[in-house]
Amino acid sequence: MVVFRCEQALLDGPRGEYVLAGPVDITCDNGVITAIGPVDPSSTQVQVLDGLVTPSFADAHSHVFHRALRGRTHESADGPGDFWTWRDVMYSAAEKLDPEGLFALSQAAYAEMVCAGVTAVGEFHYLHHGPDGRRYTDPNAMGLALAEAAGAASLDLTLLDVAYLAGGIGSSGEPLALNRVQQRFGDGSIGAWADRVAAIPATIRTGVAIHSVRAVPAADMPTIVAAAGDRWLHVHLSEQPAENDATLAAYGLTPTQVLERAGAIGPRTAAVHATHLSAADIEILGTGGASIVMCPATEADLADGIGPARELATAGARISLGSDQHVVTDPIAQARGLEYGERLATGIRGRFTPNELWRAATVDSHRCIGSAGGRLAVGAPADLVALRTNSSRTAGSRSEQLIMSASAADVAVVVAKGRVVARDGVHLALGDPGELLGRALGELWKDANL
Amino acid sequence: MVVFRCEQALLDGPRGEYVLAGPVDITCDNGVITAIGPVDPSSTQVQVLDGLVTPSFADAHSHVFHRALRGRTHESADGPGDFWTWRDVMYSAAEKLDPEGLFALSQAAYAEMVCAGVTAVGEFHYLHHGPDGRRYTDPNAMGLALAEAAGAASLDLTLLDVAYLAGGIGSSGEPLALNRVQQRFGDGSIGAWADRVAAIPATIRTGVAIHSVRAVPAADMPTIVAAAGDRWLHVHLSEQPAENDATLAAYGLTPTQVLERAGAIGPRTAAVHATHLSAADIEILGTGGASIVMCPATEADLADGIGPARELATAGARISLGSDQHVVTDPIAQARGLEYGERLATGIRGRFTPNELWRAATVDSHRCIGSAGGRLAVGAPADLVALRTNSSRTAGSRSEQLIMSASAADVAVVVAKGRVVARDGVHLALGDPGELLGRALGELWKDANL
Repeated sequence: MVVFRCEQALLDGPRGEYVLAGPVDITCDNGVITAIGPVDPSSTQVQVLDGLVTPSFADAHSHVFHRALRGRTHESADGPGDFWTWRDVMYSAAEKLDPEGLFALSQAAYAEMVCAGVTAVGEFHYLHHGPDGRRYTDPNAMGLALAEAAGAASLDLTLLDVAYLAGGIGSSGEPLALNRVQQRFGDGSIGAWADRVAAIPATIRTGVAIHSVRAVPAADMPTIVAAAGDRWLHVHLSEQPAENDATLAAYGLTPTQVLERAGAIGPRTAAVHATHLSAADIEILGTGGASIVMCPATEADLADGIGPARELATAGARISLGSDQHVVTDPIAQARGLEYGERLATGIRGRFTPNELWRAATVDSHRCIGSAGGRLAVGAPADLVALRTNSSRTAGSRSEQLIMSASAADVAVVVAKGRVVARDGVHLALGDPGELLGRALGELWKDANL
Repeated sequence: MVVFRCEQALLDGPRGEYVLAGPVDITCDNGVITAIGPVDPSSTQVQVLDGLVTPSFADAHSHVFHRALRGRTHESADGPGDFWTWRDVMYSAAEKLDPEGLFALSQAAYAEMVCAGVTAVGEFHYLHHGPDGRRYTDPNAMGLALAEAAGAASLDLTLLDVAYLAGGIGSSGEPLALNRVQQRFGDGSIGAWADRVAAIPATIRTGVAIHSVRAVPAADMPTIVAAAGDRWLHVHLSEQPAENDATLAAYGLTPTQVLERAGAIGPRTAAVHATHLSAADIEILGTGGASIVMCPATEADLADGIGPARELATAGARISLGSDQHVVTDPIAQARGLEYGERLATGIRGRFTPNELWRAATVDSHRCIGSAGGRLAVGAPADLVALRTNSSRTAGSRSEQLIMSASAADVAVVVAKGRVVARDGVHLALGDPGELLGRALGELWKDANL
């Protein structure tokens, strides 16, 4: 048993909103919060947490190997880095990774996430097979490497296993063949995908994923929906206008409508990006009670655009957040990016309240990857984060509004399942994430002139 | 004399672009760079700078007292924080400040800036007078407080003294009276403004400023242009569509056209924001060789929108960067925000090269406030910044692209005029900026329930 004595904390309020309280004792036993109450001077095993204690963050959409792209896609030999520069570097990283390299890179990037206050991740995993699509001895070797890396970093992983069957939609609506690099992503048929997924050990928490309407023919979607069962189903949705155009040409429907017809939209669906939607799409996702994973840093980096997050929330969808390509590892910056995108797109301040932003970054991101975390309440996992309120970034801010002024650099202490796992940017079991990343990425790019 | 031994450095290239070199010795004497060359093992008085050494940053547009607003304007008693919430908090801060309070707050915020790698600031100063517009004994007391604070922080200040004569443009085009809080900003007449500005001690580097076309009638602008002489003239330009509407109604011209007619657009003009421009406006600013100060964090925070920075640069304007309301103190994040805004507005990556972003944040921001800094070249001021290349944020990035992945938290060492002034986020003369800010802002907001 341990008591975290919090100077201030964002507790669960009566209507699910967060309420600022403090000082307050949060008692944890066996990785679960067992009591929350006034400071009890007679308590033993007390750990003091200064600043503001919040529920831990979750990253609802991660392609962890994209961490290798950070700071390498903004320039090419020919000039500024365009979309094709980005894709070249991404494919180059994908080509180089084997289970060992993926383990090293993921362990480092997951340690970085934990130090930033993230205790759960939804890993949207599509890099399944070896070069040219050759199966590893265990065809789930890459997924197992991710699970092992997350375990080493004390990060709670949900392996969202991605079906990736086609290289795109052809001009007559036909599925295109996978290119050489994409061979590593594909299982060849939806049956082969389902068989492989069924062989993932039950010790790993899983969900399933349709890569996108581009990469999975509509006829194969019901198999994925059936395989999902009561697990979460994730899908990249309308990230770029080109996807909408190709889908409309092939099906006469928007991507959202294709998914709806396939039975793939519901309260355990998480639609990622949802950038270019029609009013009808918003209605479908809202009334379906879907979760939406906005990835503001990636959507800016890849020039996707600003999706209709506020409209989706108002229509009934739940907004959550993902890092996607790990262009930055900072859940607070992602939440702020959500609100800033809204402001830039509409000319109006305050599209989301700070409370809604906290919820998006915590409980609603945990929820859509099947994690019970993200709440400071009795019975919830004892996952919490202490933010510095006296740093150069945060001094003077109101505590409830720190989601608009703090950064991952303000994360002082991270507690996962009742244990302190990171302090002042250092992972207690693995050390300095910068050093781990330097080693893994130095190895990955050692021959690269990219 | 001191030799900074740099692992890597961004030196001035033959065509003004930055070129990555290293290891390299940068020799400084009397605050100026006197030599740049290969490592000389026989040198004495060597200071090693690990990571990437870049020219120091400049903040070309600061309202330093707005640092008091950070994390306090995103929520009100009635719900989310809208524009009026923001203005209420801003006016409330303005009302509370006297020269002593402004000194304390500015010293703390300037220390924060220096620790973030900023060695020069253009302070767009309009909070001139006491409550109800009462003159201080020295009517430049507030400006002198800013200069004193900057000096204490080793920050090179350009005091851009703002003319603020009207509360807006009325429905018949007439200048509106100043409201109660605005009385503190106004001098009553353009002559009174010019007289006060003429009395600023020559030891302070100055420029002049037209607050905006809303706050200065066109008939008064030529006086300001004449007062500028060979100094820089700054002006808030077309930040919101409402300014354009009122100006068109009053003058039949856009704000840019009003300034052009007044002779206020030229190669020593810096137009701040420039968000909502016509094609003709862009042409005027580009062919005039004006500088543009984009303030991406503020433009997102205030829901201004995304200005046509790339078009302005292509037309001939120089792009620089400002923090404006200090919503974040991070010149690297501002540069990244410039490029991300472009990507979101156009759907295209790589609108500015990393080299263009480095230049915007350094030499071109220095230039438009009359500072010679922002270049690693013989004869330039010895102002430089060492960025960590092995942090969790930066590990794996290419050095030339760190402007897209580093943050102010990666600023390891800051050198101003040849002396180390900050290290690892701590100001060597003033200490921890978080502590200074906590004290100044605690005092400012002690009775506030905002």
